[in-house]
Amino acid sequence: IALVPKLAPDDYVGFTFFVGCMAMMAASAFFFLSMNSFDRKWKTSILVSGLITFIAAVHYWYMRDYWATNMESPTFFRYVDWILTVPLMCVEFYLILKVAGAKKSLMWKLILLSVVMLVTGYFGEGVDPANAQIWGLISGIAYFAIVYEIWLGGAAKLAKSAGGSVQSAHKILCWFVLVGWAIYPIGYMAGTPGWYEGIFGGLSMDVFYNIADAINKIGFGLVIYNLAVQQTSEA
Amino acid sequence: IALVPKLAPDDYVGFTFFVGCMAMMAASAFFFLSMNSFDRKWKTSILVSGLITFIAAVHYWYMRDYWATNMESPTFFRYVDWILTVPLMCVEFYLILKVAGAKKSLMWKLILLSVVMLVTGYFGEGVDPANAQIWGLISGIAYFAIVYEIWLGGAAKLAKSAGGSVQSAHKILCWFVLVGWAIYPIGYMAGTPGWYEGIFGGLSMDVFYNIADAINKIGFGLVIYNLAVQQTSEA
Ligand SMILES: CC1=C(/C=C/C(C)=C/C=C/C(C)=C/C=O)C(C)(C)CCC1
Ligand SMILES: CC1=C(/C=C/C(C)=C/C=C/C(C)=C/C=O)C(C)(C)CCC1
Repeated sequence: IALVPKLAPDDYVGFTFFVGCMAMMAASAFFFLSMNSFDRKWKTSILVSGLITFIAAVHYWYMRDYWATNMESPTFFRYVDWILTVPLMCVEFYLILKVAGAKKSLMWKLILLSVVMLVTGYFGEGVDPANAQIWGLISGIAYFAIVYEIWLGGAAKLAKSAGGSVQSAHKILCWFVLVGWAIYPIGYMAGTPGWYEGIFGGLSMDVFYNIADAINKIGFGLVIYNLAVQQTSEA
Repeated sequence: IALVPKLAPDDYVGFTFFVGCMAMMAASAFFFLSMNSFDRKWKTSILVSGLITFIAAVHYWYMRDYWATNMESPTFFRYVDWILTVPLMCVEFYLILKVAGAKKSLMWKLILLSVVMLVTGYFGEGVDPANAQIWGLISGIAYFAIVYEIWLGGAAKLAKSAGGSVQSAHKILCWFVLVGWAIYPIGYMAGTPGWYEGIFGGLSMDVFYNIADAINKIGFGLVIYNLAVQQTSEA
């Protein structure tokens, strides 16, 4: 029999870790079990969505237990998770736009930018919090470069030329990156020292990160699922 | 080797936790393994039924162990479970009525109401039990709004226009919500202080919740399974 920890009823961080973990598991089951209903092209995208939530489920399992044991932010596992899932999300952008002739170089560009964003974020949060502002700034610039690339750069042009449901799915994903991903820097500011200290009224960094992860990982996957449904019934 | 706890033979809460856990696991296997016998439209509904029992199986696993270790109501895990499974049941209502032209706004309305119902219930049970009556009242109002919506509101009209086996499945699900879900507020009253104290003769809150969960999660799924069987042989 496993020891199940007692969590305080108002431990919202713990609550969101548990809900997040289970939601990621359920989402993975959903993507993995439904992928075979689609054409091969879309199968891969759905599979990658499932991998993203599956990787997250495993890390949420650790983070949940880490939190329950140490009552401390599991920064280490958080970034292990992101360094795998964010590049996979860049792969998703590429897979969607492949029908419109996207090149691998677009994918590598996005992956590179996301790695810069995350490595500098990790330095600010985990290694050198005294300079969290500077690391956060560099990370933020990489983030804006991603936003630029997908909204106005090469990716946007490809989506336009694809038209139809590919274009509209791309647009929704662009909004995820602009609005959903913007929750992360807010969490970062709530959890690191800097000029911005205190604006977020003591709400814990992990609550922001957990909510953002649920929105971005599962929501992102569902947009792709929807696109696959549309494209399969259109055909 | 895992430690297997000794449970008292008259520990009915423990008994129902163990039975519930296994029933949920078996139901998940049933739904997941049978989903591929149906058309895609019904596949998704069966898959969601399986996700509901799967999520419950995982949480019953915890709650069982939590109960065996602490002999205390696992409120925290109970609500983590509900906050995921009840919205998924709202999704089921939507999926069934999609053939009759249901809009996503119906789904979001039901989800919103169910979240209000559960969040206020959690406050009454876990965070602020001194005011359990008031929280329970607000939660009950949201519950009635759901009942109204599916019995007499937009969802009812759609079911009527769909007719046939969709309409009759919808009707059965409506009964589940009216009668099966009504067991939960009884459990709540058995477990929180208020004017209603003592009427339920000391029967434990968790016995009510466990029985209700088995009926609602598995029964609900089986109704949808039946509908899928009918619709597939009709076609
Ligand atoms: C801009 C910025 C950040 C951005 C993080 C982002 C955008 C993370 C996205 C994670 C996702 C999408 C995970 C889902 O799988 C950091 C690193 C917090 C540091 C502060 C500045
Ligand atoms: C009305 C009411 C409640 C209703 C709970 C319900 C209706 C829960 C349903 C759960 C289901 C259907 C789970 C199955 O997956 C609470 C929160 C106990 C608080 C008291 C008032």
